[in-house]
Amino acid sequence: MKIDKDAPVGVFDSGVGGLTVAREIMRNLPSEKIVYFGDTARVPYGNKSKETIIRYSRQIIRFLLEQQVKAIVIACNTASAFALDAVREELEIPILGVIEPGAYVAAKETKNKRVGVIGTIGTVGSGIHEAFLRKLDPDITVIGKACPLFVPLVEEGWLHDPVTKEVAQRYLGELKEKEIDTLILGCTHYPLLRSTIREVMGEGVRLVNPAYESALTLGRILEREGLLRTDGGREEFPYRFYVSDLADEFKTFANSILPYDVEMTQKIDIEKY
Amino acid sequence: MKIDKDAPVGVFDSGVGGLTVAREIMRNLPSEKIVYFGDTARVPYGNKSKETIIRYSRQIIRFLLEQQVKAIVIACNTASAFALDAVREELEIPILGVIEPGAYVAAKETKNKRVGVIGTIGTVGSGIHEAFLRKLDPDITVIGKACPLFVPLVEEGWLHDPVTKEVAQRYLGELKEKEIDTLILGCTHYPLLRSTIREVMGEGVRLVNPAYESALTLGRILEREGLLRTDGGREEFPYRFYVSDLADEFKTFANSILPYDVEMTQKIDIEKY
Repeated sequence: MKIDKDAPVGVFDSGVGGLTVAREIMRNLPSEKIVYFGDTARVPYGNKSKETIIRYSRQIIRFLLEQQVKAIVIACNTASAFALDAVREELEIPILGVIEPGAYVAAKETKNKRVGVIGTIGTVGSGIHEAFLRKLDPDITVIGKACPLFVPLVEEGWLHDPVTKEVAQRYLGELKEKEIDTLILGCTHYPLLRSTIREVMGEGVRLVNPAYESALTLGRILEREGLLRTDGGREEFPYRFYVSDLADEFKTFANSILPYDVEMTQKIDIEKY
Repeated sequence: MKIDKDAPVGVFDSGVGGLTVAREIMRNLPSEKIVYFGDTARVPYGNKSKETIIRYSRQIIRFLLEQQVKAIVIACNTASAFALDAVREELEIPILGVIEPGAYVAAKETKNKRVGVIGTIGTVGSGIHEAFLRKLDPDITVIGKACPLFVPLVEEGWLHDPVTKEVAQRYLGELKEKEIDTLILGCTHYPLLRSTIREVMGEGVRLVNPAYESALTLGRILEREGLLRTDGGREEFPYRFYVSDLADEFKTFANSILPYDVEMTQKIDIEKY
């Protein structure tokens, strides 16, 4: 199969969180076209089973292939943890998740070999970061902590708020006690809480943002495969956003995250795929 | 159609919240058999569109009819608000939601005609409580307030917690200022926050628990239709619990809400209905 270098990159998430990944691709690979799918009808993925997440991911990938994407980024930690291995073999185009790029940087940068991971119950419970980190360096100790209130706090818009700080202190206290020097923000919403997390963890802890690292990894993969766009002409293809429900709320949130106004979002019946 | 008086009552919700309604039916109508369905694969409903909620409700009702229930309680405010009218006409057995019973009691009990309603974004945004209350008494002023963090706080188990109290003060401050004398707990999770809400609102405000009122209404409807069970024999039919995902987590939460241990939960592929 000959892959079209000028085709867009497909990015998907359970909802709006993956927009932090799309944002990093826009910033770091400005020539790339993007088709984004947010599964807002079935959000959140964090409390669903592996079997369900694989089924949802396959449906979304079928939709993205119909949009003729040249590569796919699973911009959702839960789906990366549960579905990436299952779907990778089924595809002829490159696909990457957000777990590996973040784990790789954390393994490289930790000095005391104590790495923290925060995320949803599903992601942390999967132990996927630990598995990657230990494969990269068996001496690393991984301390995971699920932070289920962080996503609703972000979606409520309480990004810089005493309640959010108190919740962060509660969740992160354990990680501080265990003296980690590196913390992976293992959920796509969490970069939006970066300043609160930074305040609670202190300057001594390196915060790893997998959204940023995944954008860089995508660039390296596209270059290796001869698929990186370097020419202009991106402007002729406005970023495209699809959702499975309630396009208006998505737009409001997207406009608060992205550096420009999202003009077009379209609703897709994803269960048909 | 002849309805079997000895058949179970079907109760459904987007997830675990409706168990507060099942609990009130168990307490107030102890002879009734119950089949409960929690749509844990597609929870939450609160941020989904009307069209989606109607589709989900129809699927669940088809499943419950297969279980040969004699009546159905929609133990979910969002589904009651969005789907009850659409599905009522399609059924030959009685069906009720949790909106009407709560609104009826609030309209009867308010003295100053100022009633507050708290719930999810979907429920409050639907204006359904206001529509019912105003039909019952056009002089009533309804003040609605969405409290999206309450459900994740309950699910985190922070029922009596300073963070939950601070969040409650933030959400309910506006309702206090507007001097309501009656407050409808318009989401099935909220009765579990009753003591925190009571503390914040003070003793002067009547808290209406639609779960309790719905159980009483169900009893009246069953009696009127000659379908109320009064004999024994309920024990031979253990309460049955079905979910669309992750039966184990459901069981843990159910066991913390219900006055006995849930022994059997079974996973159903609800999208096949």
